[in-house]
Amino acid sequence: MISIAVAGASGYAGGEALRLLLNHPGYGTDFTIGALTGGSNAGTRFGDLVPSLPALADRRLEDTTEEILGSHDAAILALPHGVSASLNLPDTMKVVDCGADYRLRNANYWARFYGTEHAGSRTYGIPEMPGHREEIAASSYVAAPGCFPTGATLAAMPGIASGLMAPQISVVSVTGTSGAGKKAAVNLLGSETQANLRAYGVGTHRHTPEIKQNLEELVPDTDGVHVTFTPILAPLTRGILTTVTAPARGTDKDIRHAYEDFCADEPFLHLLPQGQQPETKSVMGSNMVHLQVEVSDGMIIATSAIDNLTKGTAGAAIQCLNLMLGWPETAGLPQTGM
Amino acid sequence: MISIAVAGASGYAGGEALRLLLNHPGYGTDFTIGALTGGSNAGTRFGDLVPSLPALADRRLEDTTEEILGSHDAAILALPHGVSASLNLPDTMKVVDCGADYRLRNANYWARFYGTEHAGSRTYGIPEMPGHREEIAASSYVAAPGCFPTGATLAAMPGIASGLMAPQISVVSVTGTSGAGKKAAVNLLGSETQANLRAYGVGTHRHTPEIKQNLEELVPDTDGVHVTFTPILAPLTRGILTTVTAPARGTDKDIRHAYEDFCADEPFLHLLPQGQQPETKSVMGSNMVHLQVEVSDGMIIATSAIDNLTKGTAGAAIQCLNLMLGWPETAGLPQTGM
Amino acid sequence: MISIAVAGASGYAGGEALRLLLNHPGYGTDFTIGALTGGSNAGTRFGDLVPSLPALADRRLEDTTEEILGSHDAAILALPHGVSASLNLPDTMKVVDCGADYRLRNANYWARFYGTEHAGSRTYGIPEMPGHREEIAASSYVAAPGCFPTGATLAAMPGIASGLMAPQISVVSVTGTSGAGKKAAVNLLGSETQANLRAYGVGTHRHTPEIKQNLEELVPDTDGVHVTFTPILAPLTRGILTTVTAPARGTDKDIRHAYEDFCADEPFLHLLPQGQQPETKSVMGSNMVHLQVEVSDGMIIATSAIDNLTKGTAGAAIQCLNLMLGWPETAGLPQTGM
Amino acid sequence: MISIAVAGASGYAGGEALRLLLNHPGYGTDFTIGALTGGSNAGTRFGDLVPSLPALADRRLEDTTEEILGSHDAAILALPHGVSASLNLPDTMKVVDCGADYRLRNANYWARFYGTEHAGSRTYGIPEMPGHREEIAASSYVAAPGCFPTGATLAAMPGIASGLMAPQISVVSVTGTSGAGKKAAVNLLGSETQANLRAYGVGTHRHTPEIKQNLEELVPDTDGVHVTFTPILAPLTRGILTTVTAPARGTDKDIRHAYEDFCADEPFLHLLPQGQQPETKSVMGSNMVHLQVEVSDGMIIATSAIDNLTKGTAGAAIQCLNLMLGWPETAGLPQTGM
Repeated sequence: MISIAVAGASGYAGGEALRLLLNHPGYGTDFTIGALTGGSNAGTRFGDLVPSLPALADRRLEDTTEEILGSHDAAILALPHGVSASLNLPDTMKVVDCGADYRLRNANYWARFYGTEHAGSRTYGIPEMPGHREEIAASSYVAAPGCFPTGATLAAMPGIASGLMAPQISVVSVTGTSGAGKKAAVNLLGSETQANLRAYGVGTHRHTPEIKQNLEELVPDTDGVHVTFTPILAPLTRGILTTVTAPARGTDKDIRHAYEDFCADEPFLHLLPQGQQPETKSVMGSNMVHLQVEVSDGMIIATSAIDNLTKGTAGAAIQCLNLMLGWPETAGLPQTGM
Repeated sequence: MISIAVAGASGYAGGEALRLLLNHPGYGTDFTIGALTGGSNAGTRFGDLVPSLPALADRRLEDTTEEILGSHDAAILALPHGVSASLNLPDTMKVVDCGADYRLRNANYWARFYGTEHAGSRTYGIPEMPGHREEIAASSYVAAPGCFPTGATLAAMPGIASGLMAPQISVVSVTGTSGAGKKAAVNLLGSETQANLRAYGVGTHRHTPEIKQNLEELVPDTDGVHVTFTPILAPLTRGILTTVTAPARGTDKDIRHAYEDFCADEPFLHLLPQGQQPETKSVMGSNMVHLQVEVSDGMIIATSAIDNLTKGTAGAAIQCLNLMLGWPETAGLPQTGM
Repeated sequence: MISIAVAGASGYAGGEALRLLLNHPGYGTDFTIGALTGGSNAGTRFGDLVPSLPALADRRLEDTTEEILGSHDAAILALPHGVSASLNLPDTMKVVDCGADYRLRNANYWARFYGTEHAGSRTYGIPEMPGHREEIAASSYVAAPGCFPTGATLAAMPGIASGLMAPQISVVSVTGTSGAGKKAAVNLLGSETQANLRAYGVGTHRHTPEIKQNLEELVPDTDGVHVTFTPILAPLTRGILTTVTAPARGTDKDIRHAYEDFCADEPFLHLLPQGQQPETKSVMGSNMVHLQVEVSDGMIIATSAIDNLTKGTAGAAIQCLNLMLGWPETAGLPQTGM
Repeated sequence: MISIAVAGASGYAGGEALRLLLNHPGYGTDFTIGALTGGSNAGTRFGDLVPSLPALADRRLEDTTEEILGSHDAAILALPHGVSASLNLPDTMKVVDCGADYRLRNANYWARFYGTEHAGSRTYGIPEMPGHREEIAASSYVAAPGCFPTGATLAAMPGIASGLMAPQISVVSVTGTSGAGKKAAVNLLGSETQANLRAYGVGTHRHTPEIKQNLEELVPDTDGVHVTFTPILAPLTRGILTTVTAPARGTDKDIRHAYEDFCADEPFLHLLPQGQQPETKSVMGSNMVHLQVEVSDGMIIATSAIDNLTKGTAGAAIQCLNLMLGWPETAGLPQTGM
């Protein structure tokens, strides 16, 4: 029985990882939950910070150190940007990093969007991307994807990979608030988010180059993929609804087939019947991606719905960890929304 | 392997029962999911009505008939009031009825609050009430409790049963909208419920006599328990937060002990540490009841949080079914909230 | 003192028109509020349907007939599609029609998107469009614009009119639920809209040709404007946040200037300082349009926020009526959001 | 023309006061809006903090000092607890203080609930309480009431004052988040408040003694009024729905009459017809109190709905200021909800 630590356990991604681990069929037989670590919250009773997991309520948060994390067989890191890159963990561990530190391969993009030194890159954790499932299974350190890139990449991928969607895509993603994390900020107060819709980070959001990197990887011998990205904050906690609009380069039928083929054998991708649009409620708390594609007036409008904390972060992390540990890829990952 | 039918499968309670069954450890080994039945929706593709459960999406809703339901080993009924009482199902089946038809033992109360003929009563499905766990396990037909009575009964029970809470209780329950069901009604439109708080059914709500019945059962040799009940509709889908206010008849310490004792061995009751109040988010999607009790100025204020669709309806139904079928009581019932 | 009738008074647009009229400085001196009419609700006490306007609570809804409406000096029609086209009102009246019946000039578009016979077109009620202010002031019957076309047209107009935005625009609008009206429908229940995001009408929404008509009017001697439109339903009641993405044909500075010039003298257009994005909360209950424009990677991303019931419907109607009656254009129209 | 300063202008109460002042019929003729002051935000462009009031967007926040405030004819103070008591403003000014500093007359209560030294008390600003309207009109400094005490006092007052409600009342108030102010705090993040209901401050909330003081003032020659108070946070920004439960001491008819008499001549009190319960949406943005009273099983259940920022704070402040300045009491105060 191995032990899995969760770093940043009291944040939203950390808490979601723990919720999934507690309900994972391997819990108590294949693995135990090791240290729960925090930053300024170290020493605090876990249940005071995360009252939704009574089984862990009387635990205390530990410090996020190499020593503590390094004494485990595996770890899920849900830390603020820059912290995971500063940790030197043993190569023998299996680590999934929910932060951005190692996602981008292009140092220039990193510098432009993050403004700090580039720490390098690691295996990128979207198993549904060509070749990634195998690469993840063979890795000891995986960079889990950002929440917006997950929704946008999976909505655009069948189109881009098949060449049926022109590489000039406009992404608009409407998101719940939990993606912004559990840190006190006036603009994230309920009084500011409830009954409100607000665009933000237009043209500057850090997930833009990650979307671009994912889509360009699908068409390596081309001039690249042009991506604009507009995130909009909406009054809900969990969920991202993404629309990808781009010129069509094929018939409606061919485009539909490309999406059908792409989703056919993927356990977490669900292409809805024609006429039914994705909604985030259907995937809440699940690791599913619901997809739809329409062709209208020469343009493809592909839409996806995910739970940003599950398939968008912690669920993706456990999906990767399952692959890395040789467990069934779907173990402990709900395919049913609430 | 037995088969379990779900009647009223496309409603909120039916959908929640199916979500829990699909994630139940016995699914596929101990039981299969049999017929999904509906009313006017019979014949419709299930996924068009409930897009959150892709595994069942291509099923068709069947008619809600004695023949179809009666061909199963067990059934969960999530039907409009009055329908379950009209069905004559085989005694050999295990049936849990989420409707109100068989909850009240007192025909006068039934007549006053429901206005129709009283169908009688069946084993009442709150396993945490004294003697009920055993009675449920021995029954073939159980009336699952109402959502408000679940929250109110469990918040008041330790006080009433111990005699430390005077039998004059004022219950105010704030609830999400899903308890009202999935039927088109102007006053339940999002435009009416979002950003709004509304009292309703003040003094006339049908769950009032059910709360009274439960509490009076705890103190059979007394003059009864006086109950007023005010429900308030709030802008969320799942969750009930209940406050029970009543005169205290004992010390703070004794009252605290009564609640501690009551919750000690119950897998779904979680008394929060002093100073921490329940919140519905902590129990969302789970079968848990989070509880707190305060004494202020001679009054007890006991509070509880439940998910009305889980512990308040479908989770309670499966908890009862687990008992009736000899399975572990907690099987398939999340103890973690989202 | 003239009298103004409101048809469809118990719906969301009708109620908003009445709220604005009751707070209009001309109320009680320049005009009285005449008949409040309804459809199936005729005869009902108004306060039972719209409890937010106590001054009118004891009125009864009257029938929506030519006789009743025609006995007034002016009327605001907030009726289901098709009803206003069936009413033959005196030419001497001033009428603003909040419905779609007379908005489209192109009968083919009408047929394709509405599927019924085209009733013709009337003066189109966006005073901020070139020439419309004067045309409205001279009209006795004005078709108030749709809510989505208002947000999209005003966000795109400075770019399209100046030639700095290429005429291939992708519109994504996130909207509250009140735009769907006050009719019972399962998919608009609070339980379906709260904590949920859902795309709908992708490529088929009836407001698509209206946006196209407005933008093409700005560049009459060209090949037209290509428009795709994706509406998304979000968990709030009032508000539309629109993003318009299109290729840039000019410098950042020129584009900014075009937006500044456009908004400079318009009382209801407010271009935010650079770096500040619109949010719907800032315009709630007001007749304002908050705007922003960014250029990112060769694309213009223009955003607008409106209250769909105010500037999107009833506020626009009263803005037009003010012009038609020779009153100050801004009278009774809040320029402050809640 | 006098000048009115607003201290704490960028907070929710300050912003609401400014929204009302900008739409007040005396604005620009009877008064101008003077300094907008802040704390740590002094020096910031107002529109960056409060984007909903474009007319004031280019103002800068000034420091909250006696010099700056004292140079005005009147001021509305919307400051953190303790700040107003530290300001020594000229007696010639008309001041309405939205803070708690001067609300309580009983120094012991102050000490127990606030824990600091008692600054004394000033005229208490609920004009609907017997004698207060006249006292306010004659005062130069008024303590505006707390939001919960407003809703609870006005719901209980007709019962208590008439002797028809026994003086043992249980108050449960469900509130939006804006009452907690605009300060960064993890437990007030949208991710914590959306889709959630949470009790807090049970038995310890600072508004408890204020409710008690108000009700006891109505029955001075008695043993006092026993009050328990439970606030519950719900997922909306504006609105308080209060339920007051207490034993009835009279017939249903007498109780109904007491409420009818109480509301008859009050411009901001609206007793709903029997059978219709208050909802906060009906009073949003208005200065109204919607009320209902039911008698059930020997208990009175009185309910009220207010907007906590309007009648609960800033609207009450302007209602008092109107009285103090000899303007019509209702000037600038909407009697229509959104």
